Amino acid sequence: MTTLLKNCAYVVTLDADASVLRDVDVLIDAGRIARIIDARDPLAEPIETLDETIDCSRRVVMPGLVNLHTHLAMTLLRGLAEDVDLDGFLTRVWAAEGAIMDAATVRLGTSLGALESLRAGTTMAADMYFHPDAGRAGAAEVGLRLATGPVLFDGPGPDGLAWERRLADVEAWPALARTLGGPDAPDLACPHSTYLVSPGHLADLGQVVRVWRRPLIHTHVSETAAENAQVIAQTGRRPVQVLADAGLLDGTIGLVFGHGVHLDLASDPALIGGHATIAHCPASNLKLASGALHWAASVSAGLALGIGTDGTSSSNDLDLWVAMRLAAMLARLTSGRPDAVTSVDILRAATQVGARALGMGDRLGSVEVGKDADLLLIDLDAEHLTPVHDVHALLVFAAGRSDVSDVFVAGERVIADRVSTTVDAEALRAQSRERAAAAVEAWP
Amino acid sequence: MTTLLKNCAYVVTLDADASVLRDVDVLIDAGRIARIIDARDPLAEPIETLDETIDCSRRVVMPGLVNLHTHLAMTLLRGLAEDVDLDGFLTRVWAAEGAIMDAATVRLGTSLGALESLRAGTTMAADMYFHPDAGRAGAAEVGLRLATGPVLFDGPGPDGLAWERRLADVEAWPALARTLGGPDAPDLACPHSTYLVSPGHLADLGQVVRVWRRPLIHTHVSETAAENAQVIAQTGRRPVQVLADAGLLDGTIGLVFGHGVHLDLASDPALIGGHATIAHCPASNLKLASGALHWAASVSAGLALGIGTDGTSSSNDLDLWVAMRLAAMLARLTSGRPDAVTSVDILRAATQVGARALGMGDRLGSVEVGKDADLLLIDLDAEHLTPVHDVHALLVFAAGRSDVSDVFVAGERVIADRVSTTVDAEALRAQSRERAAAAVEAWP
Ligand SMILES: [Zn+2]
Ligand SMILES: [Zn+2]
Repeated sequence: MTTLLKNCAYVVTLDADASVLRDVDVLIDAGRIARIIDARDPLAEPIETLDETIDCSRRVVMPGLVNLHTHLAMTLLRGLAEDVDLDGFLTRVWAAEGAIMDAATVRLGTSLGALESLRAGTTMAADMYFHPDAGRAGAAEVGLRLATGPVLFDGPGPDGLAWERRLADVEAWPALARTLGGPDAPDLACPHSTYLVSPGHLADLGQVVRVWRRPLIHTHVSETAAENAQVIAQTGRRPVQVLADAGLLDGTIGLVFGHGVHLDLASDPALIGGHATIAHCPASNLKLASGALHWAASVSAGLALGIGTDGTSSSNDLDLWVAMRLAAMLARLTSGRPDAVTSVDILRAATQVGARALGMGDRLGSVEVGKDADLLLIDLDAEHLTPVHDVHALLVFAAGRSDVSDVFVAGERVIADRVSTTVDAEALRAQSRERAAAAVEAWP
Repeated sequence: MTTLLKNCAYVVTLDADASVLRDVDVLIDAGRIARIIDARDPLAEPIETLDETIDCSRRVVMPGLVNLHTHLAMTLLRGLAEDVDLDGFLTRVWAAEGAIMDAATVRLGTSLGALESLRAGTTMAADMYFHPDAGRAGAAEVGLRLATGPVLFDGPGPDGLAWERRLADVEAWPALARTLGGPDAPDLACPHSTYLVSPGHLADLGQVVRVWRRPLIHTHVSETAAENAQVIAQTGRRPVQVLADAGLLDGTIGLVFGHGVHLDLASDPALIGGHATIAHCPASNLKLASGALHWAASVSAGLALGIGTDGTSSSNDLDLWVAMRLAAMLARLTSGRPDAVTSVDILRAATQVGARALGMGDRLGSVEVGKDADLLLIDLDAEHLTPVHDVHALLVFAAGRSDVSDVFVAGERVIADRVSTTVDAEALRAQSRERAAAAVEAWP
């Protein structure tokens, strides 16, 4: 399969120099970015066989976005727990989840969330949810790369599994995941948090994950001040110290820390030692009044920051454009400096930092020859994208999900002219509405 | 002209009880909301003659949004001054404005901003810009209600007018504005701020405006801490005290205060005495690192809060959905409380509070029989609006500009199925790109 993106108005490469290319052709071949050619160069070697040519003379081409922390199946619960904090939220949502979230419902909700994500330009997401096999399959059907894997608690949780069973599921996950289809996506083990998984269990989990080909752990860390207090009460240590003492920060495992709002910037970064990436989720943190991550101070302290949405029952959508804009704005507010973070930094956080955190930095996160073709086309024919004086600022501060006209994942055009090429979107929304009604009936 | 909105899935009335009506028909006749009828009532009096029927079985009907502070013509400068604070921003933008902003360019930029606004569901905006006649005409052509009028500085400003000429323009404005066409819109006098207009001039302006049928003043107040310090240095008083001493807060004039981030909540509300409404512009305030308005504390202190975007060269778009979401989130952050403001409060701020501030509260701001038909249709057929558990939260935390399918202003369907019925949008964007290129060349 070869596709030519012809006469691209702007290619926002996000390469090392943040180059912006004008009037180039981008050739996609066998799922990769095969060539980038100056459209005006008469000497360029002609392209022989082409399956598809897309006029990009009014399009921005950019890398697909990576949502570094979410719970896609919860999309069915959007709006069920309003005006409450994290504790109130968890209490209310977990009751509904226990009542309705079987494997079939998780698959449906994940498909819905995956399609919302893809349409908004997210090509890979790091998930955490029960029945990860159902989730992976639901995302695969829609065409999203879903990094996921077994979720772990000490207690039974809504899915009622015992700890030993959870650990066995982690051991079996990479092999099971390979059978579920869809675009290549990382395997994760997802201990919920240091307040729901004991230090001993975390150490046991590390032993199991460490033998994976690409060991990755996704967990919630220091989301709220109350969480820190609870973990200190339970263990005598802060969450990051607990993870470090369990051996998880020894450099043999890559970690994604959801939130990280209340990390201790004086001590936690040294313990993290570059082995974890923070998934900054500004929409969720603000909505639940969890607090505001300090971007500039976190970066100065040596932390790597990606961007996530969290689940829709807290945020309440899966829109990384809103998350990018919030991140850029909060960075200014928390520092008092209008130059606290550049638009290029924000775009990199939402693309290559996320890709790197999930072990795919060599293949994803920029528009460069040889990388996988996870690409977005942004339609410039909109008043709110007129004129273009600064294309990076335009993407962060004026563009939005509805400007994404086409999405490629591993070279496959999964959204074409704003239409899904993989599933019947109307049927998926109708099924989701029906199943969501059951959640309301189950409401305590 | 009669239009029937048939089988409306949800009517978000924002009436006194914040009623949400299901499965009703809404009849628009002669620019007003004539009837709201239970679609299932067999006894309802039939509707005789109809020009147009629109199926709203997958639509939310809600009041049009009011953008309480903007500078639409600046849309041509979007992205020209990035990563700078208010001072740096003004210095850089004013140079470009002086070079290109003649009346024809103001008209073009205002048309572009008006179309961006309408598509995003804004049906009325409070503007402040040079050549207000050109601005009003540009907005009228597109179909937006643009509250505007002469802008005043002590000095010559980019338009080079002397103070006496500005005052004469204010005196002549209501009569001139009546000749410019478009939907009915309030007349404003726009002294830029207490740092650019002296106390004596403000008092003179009050005398001129006070004789208007509906006296309204639109000005910038306490946007930054530096502004407060400058005004205190110039006058020995805070901005609100200066306005009060000039007699503008005596209750004979309605005022809109752009920003109000750094009001003194202990003393300013008493001086304001309910005669001014704050136009909260969270996107601009965060982007320029001006600070964060404290919503809950401001409301507790007795202030009325509407919502605005400010101009696109600071915010960088005219999206009130983003502004509503930011306002809701910032309210939680600044108070530490997830229930600091409800979604209904936010929707009211962006509709009827703005309408009331501009003297049109009796005619606009809710979906009730007898009011003007400034209405939006929101298309529910999107994954990110599925499912609907809480329609008010859905509008604030998940919906966006691209979900607005139809817009009515005074009963006229100015956006129909996402297409402008008033202007050639493609030609408008092309002209805007061309004129914006001149701004880059004029860049110092
Ligand atoms: Zn989470
Ligand atoms: Zn302003």
